[in-house]
Amino acid sequence: MKIVDLRVTPVAFADPPLRSSYGLHARYALRTVVELVGEDGVVGVGEAHGGEQTLGDFERVREAIVGRDVYDLARMWLEIAGTFGITGAVAAADRSHTYLLPGESRLDVPLRIYAAIEVAALDAIGKMVGKPVCDLLGGRVLDEVPFSAYLFFKHRGGGGVGDDARPDVWGEALTPESVVEQAIAMIAEYGFRSVKLKAGVVDPDVEIETMLALREALGPEIPLRIDPNGAWSVETSLRVGTELAGVLEYLEDPAPGLDNMAAVRHGLLASGIDLPLASNIAVTSFADVPEAVRCDAVQVILGDHHYWGGPRAVTQLGRLCETFGLGLSMHSNSHLGVSLLAMTHLAAATPGLTYDCDTHYPWQHAEDEIVQGGRVPIVNGAVRVPDRPGLGAELDQDALARGRERYERCGYRNRDDAAEMRRYIDPSWKREVPAW
Amino acid sequence: MKIVDLRVTPVAFADPPLRSSYGLHARYALRTVVELVGEDGVVGVGEAHGGEQTLGDFERVREAIVGRDVYDLARMWLEIAGTFGITGAVAAADRSHTYLLPGESRLDVPLRIYAAIEVAALDAIGKMVGKPVCDLLGGRVLDEVPFSAYLFFKHRGGGGVGDDARPDVWGEALTPESVVEQAIAMIAEYGFRSVKLKAGVVDPDVEIETMLALREALGPEIPLRIDPNGAWSVETSLRVGTELAGVLEYLEDPAPGLDNMAAVRHGLLASGIDLPLASNIAVTSFADVPEAVRCDAVQVILGDHHYWGGPRAVTQLGRLCETFGLGLSMHSNSHLGVSLLAMTHLAAATPGLTYDCDTHYPWQHAEDEIVQGGRVPIVNGAVRVPDRPGLGAELDQDALARGRERYERCGYRNRDDAAEMRRYIDPSWKREVPAW
Repeated sequence: MKIVDLRVTPVAFADPPLRSSYGLHARYALRTVVELVGEDGVVGVGEAHGGEQTLGDFERVREAIVGRDVYDLARMWLEIAGTFGITGAVAAADRSHTYLLPGESRLDVPLRIYAAIEVAALDAIGKMVGKPVCDLLGGRVLDEVPFSAYLFFKHRGGGGVGDDARPDVWGEALTPESVVEQAIAMIAEYGFRSVKLKAGVVDPDVEIETMLALREALGPEIPLRIDPNGAWSVETSLRVGTELAGVLEYLEDPAPGLDNMAAVRHGLLASGIDLPLASNIAVTSFADVPEAVRCDAVQVILGDHHYWGGPRAVTQLGRLCETFGLGLSMHSNSHLGVSLLAMTHLAAATPGLTYDCDTHYPWQHAEDEIVQGGRVPIVNGAVRVPDRPGLGAELDQDALARGRERYERCGYRNRDDAAEMRRYIDPSWKREVPAW
Repeated sequence: MKIVDLRVTPVAFADPPLRSSYGLHARYALRTVVELVGEDGVVGVGEAHGGEQTLGDFERVREAIVGRDVYDLARMWLEIAGTFGITGAVAAADRSHTYLLPGESRLDVPLRIYAAIEVAALDAIGKMVGKPVCDLLGGRVLDEVPFSAYLFFKHRGGGGVGDDARPDVWGEALTPESVVEQAIAMIAEYGFRSVKLKAGVVDPDVEIETMLALREALGPEIPLRIDPNGAWSVETSLRVGTELAGVLEYLEDPAPGLDNMAAVRHGLLASGIDLPLASNIAVTSFADVPEAVRCDAVQVILGDHHYWGGPRAVTQLGRLCETFGLGLSMHSNSHLGVSLLAMTHLAAATPGLTYDCDTHYPWQHAEDEIVQGGRVPIVNGAVRVPDRPGLGAELDQDALARGRERYERCGYRNRDDAAEMRRYIDPSWKREVPAW
């Protein structure tokens, strides 16, 4: 199938005021929907990070895509990498996400652009040959992909403004008790069998208390994770790790950078605590892996096809993790159904991915979904791997148009959680890493 | 495509009396041809190591294959691995090839069995969707895959017996001068632009002399490699490495095992010689990689889809090598056109494979080829990546039947180069590692 057009559509959708060490989620999350249009009328779809610069980035690679056969992915990657000045398959995205928001680093732009193209190409190929994307990645080892509940400290509001304002389904959650309520409600709705808390937001003692309250309320059979996005010093990380040893499945990005992560790891081991450290901000690319392995800074890598360079790259990461005895889990940013399906197919085809995947999906609203048939169901904490060709869904073009209109009027043109924090919560707020 | 039959055909073909540290190539090389037959009549073909035990091994996995969809590869692998008692994707094949002939180790049997199935599945899928196998592996980065001339110390004879006896195209080569003649003739015939010598056969001083003679005769623009299959002590390896520094592209498996390889590496570096060490016998599986990286024992891995677990596994190895700054080259055993095509597609789709691939193919004879149209052309030292669907060739069923008859009457039922050495050259011969 020759690609005759690349359609790039910016969308915005309501996002609740969730907190992290980066600041505050804006009223709208931004994404970019890409469609590869084939001469035979087949259309493959992918979803990328959002905003105005992203639209320009996709325009820059248009000539690398249009006119090519949809299978000609390796050469598309080389051209995209070359466009952005990266010629090898491994980008130098070292530590970028520790300090920059995912999607706002210029270092991994080509990987993120290519990733959406690869997803769209796999969707198109799957539709052409009548096979689900997981089959194109080597075949599934799972029929259902488990996801984790993703808890946040949260202010009042459901996200969106005016006509786009969405109901505040989950309510405010700024205390251990209200976070536990959030967990119970989210598990009741989706059946999640593991739970992650986005931390680095309030005093670490309160976050420790929150995790202990979650353990108490949910019982020992629900694995728990906590992720302050590098907001803690080594000392604080050691204290949290020590107090939550035996409670956590893994401790995610407690301290910023590989050196601090390694110090946490070795400090915990010295206290007899073998608690795996996970990362998606100290290790964000293949270039980060050798040093992470060498200093034993990370025991679980959270892959993300969006910025590791596509689903195939993450299956390769899976083999690498297996080889070096590392665990593999999956990171998420705010996303819509196209990305959820891509993540599901990828996880189904990655035997080394042994942890439940992250997803922000429960925080989004049915009104904003862009795939036909509405939201992708999460049942018993899992997404059923579609048997339908490609990703298993078609775009709802009316919903996509509404998403674009929302993008046009929402005013947001990039992601800036710190600005949002200053605007709505604390005019003097500034991200500090570590903050505690 | 549902797989309705697995056809397994043993073949034998004439092989000249080539020498290595394992002993002597037998008069016949053995291979196994597998055909996956689809309900729609599409047939995919793969080629594996040979012999009687291999036939039994394929029978053991028949139920894991027949009845499945041809895309359902991950689950086929899991069942095959389970059949042989290996449940993870990484087998414990540590160092096996240092002491056992490739194809004769029981440790990597499931990987070798699966690899042939995967090749056959990719061939079938390619034929169904009208795309070459390289496209199914992520797309090509090369249109022509360069191979290296593979020189051997050799006794008189073309291989085969009786009606199967083949002409001795290359003649005897047991001296530096005759090996140089072999190189010149092989380059004249195939246009190779790099040269490898299988060593560990005669006194290391003679082998050093041979390499220097090759450099003299071929000029500095032809990269040279030497591979004694671990036949040298660390001391001898250091001496060879020192004398051939500046002459070799890489030094392959000089000493047995990772510890000795590491000692060679560090010894050369201490002398200011940064000569990459390559390996396909100290590093034969993903399980060997972490220790090889940790002790810097190997700088170039020779992948081989036959025993690393299929083409996809080698693309994953490519990413791993790129990540850790290792080079990737490609190993070969005696093989026919099906394997050559699989190697070609794989190399074309593996950006990190930056060295010319090994192949024994010039040592085989047109009369023994099993693909329609006869031997796959090597022109200017390269195989053109087929644009035709699948591997790009169909089996010649008459030639396959002749290969089977040859197998039936040749008497060989496994590979035993040491026995052959005792039978024809030296009744008291015994492989010693290291021998010098």
